[in-house]
Amino acid sequence: MATTLKLYEQIAKVLRENIHTGLFVEGDKLPSIRQLVSEFEVSISTVQQAYHQLEMEGLIEARPKSGYFVAHKMDSPDLPITSRPAQRPIEVSQWQDVLEVLLAKEDKQKVQLQHAMPNMKVSSLSPLLKKMSWLMRQQAEISLPYCDIKGTLALREQIVEIATYSGCVLHPDDLVITSGCQEALSVCLRAVTEPADIVAVESPSFYGSMQAIKAANLKAIEIPTNSENGLSLEALELALEQWPIKAILVTPTVNNPMGFSMSEADKKRLYQLAQSYDISIIEDDIYGDISYQSPRPKTIKSFDEDGRVLLCSSFSKSVAPGIRVGWIAPGRYRDKVTHIKYVSSSMCPTLPQLAIADFIQSGAYARHTRKVRLLYKQGRDHLIQCIKQHFPIGTRISFPQGGYILWVELDKRYDTVKVYAQSKKSTVSIAPGTLFSATGKFRHCMRLNFSEKTALEREQGIIELANLIKQQDND
Amino acid sequence: MATTLKLYEQIAKVLRENIHTGLFVEGDKLPSIRQLVSEFEVSISTVQQAYHQLEMEGLIEARPKSGYFVAHKMDSPDLPITSRPAQRPIEVSQWQDVLEVLLAKEDKQKVQLQHAMPNMKVSSLSPLLKKMSWLMRQQAEISLPYCDIKGTLALREQIVEIATYSGCVLHPDDLVITSGCQEALSVCLRAVTEPADIVAVESPSFYGSMQAIKAANLKAIEIPTNSENGLSLEALELALEQWPIKAILVTPTVNNPMGFSMSEADKKRLYQLAQSYDISIIEDDIYGDISYQSPRPKTIKSFDEDGRVLLCSSFSKSVAPGIRVGWIAPGRYRDKVTHIKYVSSSMCPTLPQLAIADFIQSGAYARHTRKVRLLYKQGRDHLIQCIKQHFPIGTRISFPQGGYILWVELDKRYDTVKVYAQSKKSTVSIAPGTLFSATGKFRHCMRLNFSEKTALEREQGIIELANLIKQQDND
Repeated sequence: MATTLKLYEQIAKVLRENIHTGLFVEGDKLPSIRQLVSEFEVSISTVQQAYHQLEMEGLIEARPKSGYFVAHKMDSPDLPITSRPAQRPIEVSQWQDVLEVLLAKEDKQKVQLQHAMPNMKVSSLSPLLKKMSWLMRQQAEISLPYCDIKGTLALREQIVEIATYSGCVLHPDDLVITSGCQEALSVCLRAVTEPADIVAVESPSFYGSMQAIKAANLKAIEIPTNSENGLSLEALELALEQWPIKAILVTPTVNNPMGFSMSEADKKRLYQLAQSYDISIIEDDIYGDISYQSPRPKTIKSFDEDGRVLLCSSFSKSVAPGIRVGWIAPGRYRDKVTHIKYVSSSMCPTLPQLAIADFIQSGAYARHTRKVRLLYKQGRDHLIQCIKQHFPIGTRISFPQGGYILWVELDKRYDTVKVYAQSKKSTVSIAPGTLFSATGKFRHCMRLNFSEKTALEREQGIIELANLIKQQDND
Repeated sequence: MATTLKLYEQIAKVLRENIHTGLFVEGDKLPSIRQLVSEFEVSISTVQQAYHQLEMEGLIEARPKSGYFVAHKMDSPDLPITSRPAQRPIEVSQWQDVLEVLLAKEDKQKVQLQHAMPNMKVSSLSPLLKKMSWLMRQQAEISLPYCDIKGTLALREQIVEIATYSGCVLHPDDLVITSGCQEALSVCLRAVTEPADIVAVESPSFYGSMQAIKAANLKAIEIPTNSENGLSLEALELALEQWPIKAILVTPTVNNPMGFSMSEADKKRLYQLAQSYDISIIEDDIYGDISYQSPRPKTIKSFDEDGRVLLCSSFSKSVAPGIRVGWIAPGRYRDKVTHIKYVSSSMCPTLPQLAIADFIQSGAYARHTRKVRLLYKQGRDHLIQCIKQHFPIGTRISFPQGGYILWVELDKRYDTVKVYAQSKKSTVSIAPGTLFSATGKFRHCMRLNFSEKTALEREQGIIELANLIKQQDND
């Protein structure tokens, strides 16, 4: 279907081609808005829209009071090597280590590289806080009764809207609101498995979902995962042939902890594999809306023909975790998911749901995610520079396609569990790699967060961390 | 240990004895405050305190502008007959019926006798709403980050305080905050059992906990329960001898749906039974703080010597369900409970926890529960009168010792599932008895709520309901 490009898209297209053909190169200043207005005979806002589009694509960057410049392309760093976990179902351990990290008191003095917490100081969150405050002042009594068992309709309607950007056509009845993504994942796992079943996971993968596997009396089979392309589909197929796997739990878009986004083609292949072996897919899309790509990548759910994909998400990473609003699009498992969500924690509080619904409907959510995406992308590039500069030779770094966490693989002689232990007395905090394995692998890796601090603070943190690591050369 | 009675307690004691010996009889006006001030040579506030104490005990009642009178004693109605459920472990069914009730849209025009919802229009809730509104206006940003994995310390400290009234000596570290009591029960069940284990429950019992048993792949064994004394300890012991029961889930204080409170002696015996057979007790105390007794009855947890009791509660019934703040005192299962709570829904929102902590600390929670206890007790007496007057002969009614729900047992020829179906087109809503059995028993029973409407509205609802029931005489 041929579509006519809008004016601003035409201008963006011309500029994009000029950059790709090398007419403008890295660091070049682009024509001023005034110049383009007269050249194309369009309004100022049309040119602004064109520049905004290219900025979203990461092709150009705005410098305050100087205009627009062709962005510096970040060379992808030396990437971590594909993980090679044991290909057999195992019981998840590591809870004591996870608990220790969860219990760690936040020390405001420290450079916090440990928790996957978003930046909550950005001004684009103000409309949400204002709305919550307004609701509480004007309609505090709505916070008293239970809400609908599936969640407030106003919010489910707005989630239907934002899900279209990931290629999903949903209906409010297809959604169940949860207490964050953790509850979503936990409920979905219980909905599609029986105790002692086997669930395939990426390796490394998020400790919260692995602990949910443990608590549901399931076994995990860790599938090798590549920091560039994601889950190895070949390894998955081998595992599917060999073991009676019941479901696969994946974070294919802006993965935690690696940051990769699987290609659309690979997502399709993964879905087809699930079809062939008749297993269900629990898709964790919690970072999807803060992918650096525009438009954001499609979900596996968007290819779902027979309802076997349970899409889980929340506003914890894109907005704030304390809001505790997550959701499930459970496909054919809707009734089971509704049951388990009800027994898990009954209904969700109404007020945060209404505030988020308003945040989305007013356009403030879109503005906020646009803003933080740029912020996080700059954070990524800066953190990678710092690591390259200060960490020992042989360090490999993942190259996240969104969000604010990355994965560092040190030379095998280094022990990040030891670094982690030492970091407690230092000015920096990290998440050791072992948390992201069912059985304590990745002992030379770590996950670092780059959402919160200033560039200067982050660099200081990285220098401190590099010193802790290099101390091991003397052991 | 001999303790000296305070002045007001001495006066209350004299008056109490005068009532018990018949010096004052039902309906008699008691001496005015002025008279007692001069007779006992004490301050006005001391006499007021004495009268307040007796009012709490239900012995006397205040009539506006007239003074204090000896309360009319409500004769306990014809009580339901002890249930005789099948004494073998069974799978819980009934989810579709529970779901239908949960999905029912609230119709403000209807006399709502169905849901166990507290009265949320009382002015004594204002301090909570004001605090929430203030927090949101002044400190909205505290709603953004995660709170402590076990819940906000300020709240845990306050729960330690109120738990002393039920005889418990706890420490903030002994507590885990949850998303309401449903999450508390669900987490505890998973913490003390393995899939396929057997859990003993009262019969009838709360559908939410039975559905949690179902979702955790457990079997329930229903223990006969008497509407006056509660769980039959003889039947429980027989079941314990015969089956490998892992845990017992009970609501021994202001039971849902019956309203009884087990005696302290029976609670102790139940605990000793649990010790002998080495099983754990999940004690649901959600209605405990709105018992009509003053001081409120002790929990089984208060006798716990070896940490086998997991005490679950929340502010859903005593304050408001939409707040979603519950808690567990998990005893020796603390680590397992912390793990399962974390995977279940991660941390709880901070702001409602702070608001509740303030509500308790300021004394407003005590004032509120004192107020609603009296309100609910009047509601109980009125509803029982209405039922006696309008329902068919042979109706038996439980005599709740707190809260705002009671259990009605009709003659066996009546079918409350049919009444429930017809009530959907009527002006009244009920909860059919079948919801409170694992396998659809109690088809001639129903649970009625008396928290919300005015006496007039409730009577109209009861008349409508009586008509629906009596229609069956013509079938």
